[in-house]
Amino acid sequence: MSKKWRTAISWHFDHEAYVRGYKLADIIGNLSFTEAIYLVLKGELPTEKEKKMLDAIFVSLVEHSIAPPSVIAARAVASGGNSLHVGVGAGVLAFGEAHGGALEGAMKFLQENVDRNPEEVVKEFLDKKIRIPGYGHRYYKEYDPRSKRMFEIAKVIGFFGKYCRFAEEVEKAIEKIKGKKLVMNVDGAIAAIVSEMGFDYRLGKGFFIIGRIPGLVAHTYEELVMEKPFSKRLDEEKEVEYLGNKPRELPESFKNRN
Amino acid sequence: MSKKWRTAISWHFDHEAYVRGYKLADIIGNLSFTEAIYLVLKGELPTEKEKKMLDAIFVSLVEHSIAPPSVIAARAVASGGNSLHVGVGAGVLAFGEAHGGALEGAMKFLQENVDRNPEEVVKEFLDKKIRIPGYGHRYYKEYDPRSKRMFEIAKVIGFFGKYCRFAEEVEKAIEKIKGKKLVMNVDGAIAAIVSEMGFDYRLGKGFFIIGRIPGLVAHTYEELVMEKPFSKRLDEEKEVEYLGNKPRELPESFKNRN
Amino acid sequence: MSKKWRTAISWHFDHEAYVRGYKLADIIGNLSFTEAIYLVLKGELPTEKEKKMLDAIFVSLVEHSIAPPSVIAARAVASGGNSLHVGVGAGVLAFGEAHGGALEGAMKFLQENVDRNPEEVVKEFLDKKIRIPGYGHRYYKEYDPRSKRMFEIAKVIGFFGKYCRFAEEVEKAIEKIKGKKLVMNVDGAIAAIVSEMGFDYRLGKGFFIIGRIPGLVAHTYEELVMEKPFSKRLDEEKEVEYLGNKPRELPESFKNRN
Amino acid sequence: MSKKWRTAISWHFDHEAYVRGYKLADIIGNLSFTEAIYLVLKGELPTEKEKKMLDAIFVSLVEHSIAPPSVIAARAVASGGNSLHVGVGAGVLAFGEAHGGALEGAMKFLQENVDRNPEEVVKEFLDKKIRIPGYGHRYYKEYDPRSKRMFEIAKVIGFFGKYCRFAEEVEKAIEKIKGKKLVMNVDGAIAAIVSEMGFDYRLGKGFFIIGRIPGLVAHTYEELVMEKPFSKRLDEEKEVEYLGNKPRELPESFKNRN
Repeated sequence: MSKKWRTAISWHFDHEAYVRGYKLADIIGNLSFTEAIYLVLKGELPTEKEKKMLDAIFVSLVEHSIAPPSVIAARAVASGGNSLHVGVGAGVLAFGEAHGGALEGAMKFLQENVDRNPEEVVKEFLDKKIRIPGYGHRYYKEYDPRSKRMFEIAKVIGFFGKYCRFAEEVEKAIEKIKGKKLVMNVDGAIAAIVSEMGFDYRLGKGFFIIGRIPGLVAHTYEELVMEKPFSKRLDEEKEVEYLGNKPRELPESFKNRN
Repeated sequence: MSKKWRTAISWHFDHEAYVRGYKLADIIGNLSFTEAIYLVLKGELPTEKEKKMLDAIFVSLVEHSIAPPSVIAARAVASGGNSLHVGVGAGVLAFGEAHGGALEGAMKFLQENVDRNPEEVVKEFLDKKIRIPGYGHRYYKEYDPRSKRMFEIAKVIGFFGKYCRFAEEVEKAIEKIKGKKLVMNVDGAIAAIVSEMGFDYRLGKGFFIIGRIPGLVAHTYEELVMEKPFSKRLDEEKEVEYLGNKPRELPESFKNRN
Repeated sequence: MSKKWRTAISWHFDHEAYVRGYKLADIIGNLSFTEAIYLVLKGELPTEKEKKMLDAIFVSLVEHSIAPPSVIAARAVASGGNSLHVGVGAGVLAFGEAHGGALEGAMKFLQENVDRNPEEVVKEFLDKKIRIPGYGHRYYKEYDPRSKRMFEIAKVIGFFGKYCRFAEEVEKAIEKIKGKKLVMNVDGAIAAIVSEMGFDYRLGKGFFIIGRIPGLVAHTYEELVMEKPFSKRLDEEKEVEYLGNKPRELPESFKNRN
Repeated sequence: MSKKWRTAISWHFDHEAYVRGYKLADIIGNLSFTEAIYLVLKGELPTEKEKKMLDAIFVSLVEHSIAPPSVIAARAVASGGNSLHVGVGAGVLAFGEAHGGALEGAMKFLQENVDRNPEEVVKEFLDKKIRIPGYGHRYYKEYDPRSKRMFEIAKVIGFFGKYCRFAEEVEKAIEKIKGKKLVMNVDGAIAAIVSEMGFDYRLGKGFFIIGRIPGLVAHTYEELVMEKPFSKRLDEEKEVEYLGNKPRELPESFKNRN
């Protein structure tokens, strides 16, 4: 850090906070939260349809049951006797490759290949045995209702363009070439729409984080007010299988050393 | 965990996700993100004025420059060669007592004392030498313009009630009893409004986390795309003062031990 | 940070790293890890008995089954598709008040009261209904075998002094005054010994973190090599109880908004 | 988690804790911390030379100045008003690809290529323009004194075998083929030795984490006792360069919306 830190996001002019050039005091009460998020991330104010689209995307991610690793981590950490923010922070950490990562991966895939022939792309990936992110679901085999819903909304609002079409064509190409349908899942659908809106794939996980944080906050709060500290503790007898060594004697050479 | 995990937030009925009883597929495209957040946190859909108030609160928190510890932590972690979510998670961890904690503290103070006589309360705190959270600012000495703005909006929307009045009276009581003005800062103002909306103080830091997360995402993303890995490294010569031991010789008894 | 960062721990002299004044290159191969830890934390090299005592303390903390919240968090985060260090970091976050915090609390209690009359102290705490940290165990009711072992070792090595005696007297005083035995648990015993060694209570959780980190590393590694990504996912049907709303219809005013 | 959690690390038999089959109460006071770490990670007790080698490795990593991103993150988070463990946890998160990751990468490289011809391997990597992890240093151009020291110790103790020789041959091959020397750095040297000891590369970052944690604890503790809360705050004027928008007026359509 011999060099200065650098940023283009916000600054103080005459002791007043400005975000992307707009006075913070002016946007409070005038922008919806989603409009402010768009401004922070993109640098400009959204149009009405951009705001609507982003609202739909965040709402689709806002909460998805107690089951995923992020909630397990958040509630476990909270149960260790921590403040709300420590549990939420731990939950965010769980958003790795297998949990939210598909959105980023699918955005990268679409943004790098959208102008190519879908069948050619799919063939290339299948030949190299690389999984195409955004396709396949363990439960949905015909279509993913959430993807369908997201694309319906994108059509109504006006964000169904070349990325969405390409995403659909890839789904067809996979079925044709692989001989087995892998549905475009909700990560794939959101990835297409967000690409349509001009967002960089490297920001991909950011949508997931912002969208899901309210769910993590609610779960961590629920743990703190509903359960006792240390409630998250495995019961060895019922919940764990031990695969290790049976009891054994410490070798003589390690005994009575003090 | 011999006992089951318990939650009231969301559930699957017939393989469909429901949030607080409403089908996720139904709220997508119909609720704004802020309405969905309210639903997740409070359990019910907001009225129009509740939505507006919450929008104003989140916007007021959405980003506050590169300076605070949370952004330093987020960008430092990202510069270690990490994914976006790891940097953001580290940033959330910085939201301790001195950084966002005042909001929670001020909510607790207001909710526990709102029905008492303000001067009596202030006297009690001053006597016990306990700092009243939500008051005082190192720069603003007459009034905090952000508090003023938040209360103006609360009045227009219709959330200026007993908590806000009590918060103002406490400001006056401090000046009267202490003989020195401590302005009601923005944490104090938001605390009053959120209390007015019926939120529990233990959820206090949650508003700060949800509101500020877009700023953390933007800063971490900026670090990843704008700077080289390991860019966040202190320059010992220019940025650090060493207060420790001068070089000294290892005692003989510790030498040549292998 | 207009002011410089400050540290007394380590520095570079002529491009060579020094730790507490000793050349890093000199201590490598000459100090055991435990001796180096002592140097880093305390600022000086340990005597032989200080090294032995610290070894015993760290070994007592090194691993304590898969059950605690820290391991749950570490493995859940790893299962989200993260690198080893992200899982371990999340595990460390779980070391809150209810998980490792007792060690810090017990050190504080002992260091603040060691020169007072034990019965007077216990009476004061019981009157104020404050729990005395370091006493009580849900399973051990007569004595905690780990505390017994730690005190035996402290006696052999030569660290059984006024803190340890005070800790034992407090145990007796609790039984006498409360009429019910609360055994001095392993946190209490370690707290007494570490106080005997001259460590500040505010470093208390540090011993727990350093001692337990190898267990967290082993568990996170085991998760990564033994289990599939997303293996840590709750089974709603078998492992969760839902306490929330039944499915309900979205009010008309919220429908067809786009 | 419909399936049980699984582990081979530790277990309770008759309410007694066992680690890798040995009674915890037995290893306390008999094993050094390093021996216990070896047991936890490897599953077996170390020989005398394995213990010595591991001690040297951990000591080489134990602390490396206030400069790196991990310390910046740890101290920034602590300064937000957090407990010791939260700062340390944030520090661990900084150990990404660019900070400790080289050790894991170098282990992988050595373990996958050790039985091949070094020049062939180097040529392959250079042709593919893939950086070989463990080589190169911004300051040391002739040799890295830390690598030299580690290899000297490995020779004395008896861990200088095929991995170390291969690592040296790769250094020579790089110089020969590339026409420019890239010194084998300390990550490369440790990677070779740890491979010699039979550790899996996927555990690589674990050595870094365990070795460096005492330094992180010391820095976080120092922050908490030496500095005021919020001491870690950037000075916009002196430490930050703003690259963003100048102040601009909010468009009329966004004004007076409430």
